[in-house]
Amino acid sequence: MEPQTTPAVDSVITRLARVATTRGPQDLHERLANLDRFVRADLIDFEAELALIPRGARVVQQAAHHLLDLSGKHLRPVCVALASRFGAGFDARARGLAVAVELVHTATLLHDDVVDVADKRRGKPTACTVYGNAASIFAGDWLLVAALRRIGAVEPELVEPMLAVIDEMILAESIQLERRGVLVETAELRRGYFEVVEGKTAALFRWAMMAGAKAAGLSRAQTAALERYGFHLGVAFQAVDDELDFAKDDHATGKDPLADLREGKVTYPLVVALEHEPALRPRIAALLASDEPDAVELHAIARIVRSSGALKATRELAEEHVRGALGVLEELPVGPAREALVTVALASLERAS
Amino acid sequence: MEPQTTPAVDSVITRLARVATTRGPQDLHERLANLDRFVRADLIDFEAELALIPRGARVVQQAAHHLLDLSGKHLRPVCVALASRFGAGFDARARGLAVAVELVHTATLLHDDVVDVADKRRGKPTACTVYGNAASIFAGDWLLVAALRRIGAVEPELVEPMLAVIDEMILAESIQLERRGVLVETAELRRGYFEVVEGKTAALFRWAMMAGAKAAGLSRAQTAALERYGFHLGVAFQAVDDELDFAKDDHATGKDPLADLREGKVTYPLVVALEHEPALRPRIAALLASDEPDAVELHAIARIVRSSGALKATRELAEEHVRGALGVLEELPVGPAREALVTVALASLERAS
Repeated sequence: MEPQTTPAVDSVITRLARVATTRGPQDLHERLANLDRFVRADLIDFEAELALIPRGARVVQQAAHHLLDLSGKHLRPVCVALASRFGAGFDARARGLAVAVELVHTATLLHDDVVDVADKRRGKPTACTVYGNAASIFAGDWLLVAALRRIGAVEPELVEPMLAVIDEMILAESIQLERRGVLVETAELRRGYFEVVEGKTAALFRWAMMAGAKAAGLSRAQTAALERYGFHLGVAFQAVDDELDFAKDDHATGKDPLADLREGKVTYPLVVALEHEPALRPRIAALLASDEPDAVELHAIARIVRSSGALKATRELAEEHVRGALGVLEELPVGPAREALVTVALASLERAS
Repeated sequence: MEPQTTPAVDSVITRLARVATTRGPQDLHERLANLDRFVRADLIDFEAELALIPRGARVVQQAAHHLLDLSGKHLRPVCVALASRFGAGFDARARGLAVAVELVHTATLLHDDVVDVADKRRGKPTACTVYGNAASIFAGDWLLVAALRRIGAVEPELVEPMLAVIDEMILAESIQLERRGVLVETAELRRGYFEVVEGKTAALFRWAMMAGAKAAGLSRAQTAALERYGFHLGVAFQAVDDELDFAKDDHATGKDPLADLREGKVTYPLVVALEHEPALRPRIAALLASDEPDAVELHAIARIVRSSGALKATRELAEEHVRGALGVLEELPVGPAREALVTVALASLERAS
């Protein structure tokens, strides 16, 4: 079992880091190799179960599988698996919950891509481009239903918490929608940013950790600690996402660069840039309000944001939440599961896509 | 309690008949007055509970309430109420399920209007016209989640059957989507039509009857009979809907006339017209394939469909299912609840919108 030659090892490493990082902690490679050994079998089991989602002849099923087949990082299922490893382990119940969380995540991406009129996702054409908006909307609905049925089958008392998470996600989407193209006052921008991140990203990570913990029969205190870990990981993850959108002008992330800015979304770097350089406000307001932003102005503003110190502040936000995540882990027993979560938190800072 | 002066009476009568019908059974008016007396209090309770759905400041909530406030016929909640009256009655649990079924119905209309690019619903601009497609998509999601949470709170074992119904609805939508603008072979058209009607319309009526029966603690046999009633009522209801789309050139239904035909949907009158007059096929194929159908040709084809005997056949389909519904009721105890369901079935043939 040479780690570097088997696909599963490669996949875990690349999913969490995607880079031979030069800026990460000295031991991250070794940590990732350990993490891989620890979750490899779980991830294989998870992927085998995910592959069983019925394909069917219907266009909604094809649209759903279009995105499921462009396999993502599977980070939320890894969260379920790792939480479960503090207790009974990644058994059939935990596996069902891991599949469910990935289906919910995929459903939200399908709806997001319709709403954002996105062309690319994971380096490939979006489902809405290939199958149309209607099929993508119904495909998202179909996956949500499949996820909820699965949760109901393995752990009925987790259906309501998942519905509460989906509710949070929808209200966060709503805030983002209302804010699109509109530049509110800076303090309000900052508040709205965190509301959106908590609802759109952190809530589902929190559920994933909670689900793994419940399936594995952990105590209430340990479950609560793992939920807090999920929250911090989610915010860190989103902050790095925001940074990546600005960091490069190429397509290394599999999405269009500057997609958030082009879609009129105010992400953390933009909030900070406005705080640092209030004189930018009219230019950014004009850019956000434009349906077809001028490419030259788009890149000019991206350069100003980069030179304003906003990316550094965004990284600091991510680091603050990684520290939060690591702090919470102190409340959990020492061992390979805890070490694995340390690695996931550290690696979240180092990913390139 | 003068029936004709209180709003609730008027609303029940108009909701179910909307007409001083001349073609209905002689006693339909008296039947509707009896029905009204029987469900009036339940309907008031239902509407009071529906009014409690949180309004909130978010645009998704506004889009959802835009349609909820354009109060529909509330026929599915009436089904829950009437089924419950064979047993324990329309108590808090049954009421919660009635609200849930109306929320699911409203959610599907929100998504349908986006997919159909519909301008009008219940005589008013659609939510997607007023609040945009994105807000309408998320508003539908929001209502689905609210419905499922409510079912989970009052009758957790009905969550899975509702998820199964939503799954059927999505697959029916998918068939409709695949068929849009495409004219398959006639036998296939007929088969597809029934798949769509059963999934899109009958399944939710079936659930409504089942939910009322379960909440009221009815026997398995009675519950199964009421489910079959719901199925037949749903098909009859949809057949009348199909007829109404062709029957008039005005806006009496609150939707655009010939909306189905314009959207490239093959409804029952069109299936029958093609069976009766195969020579029509090329013209209908051209119309369905057109993104912006020519108005003159649209109305010309509608006239041919009307004169082909297709509307009569559509009415016969509705009548056949009303007879099916009435036949099933023989299995249930005689009494006011059964009489009320007889009236609902008969009135479904007489509505004008």
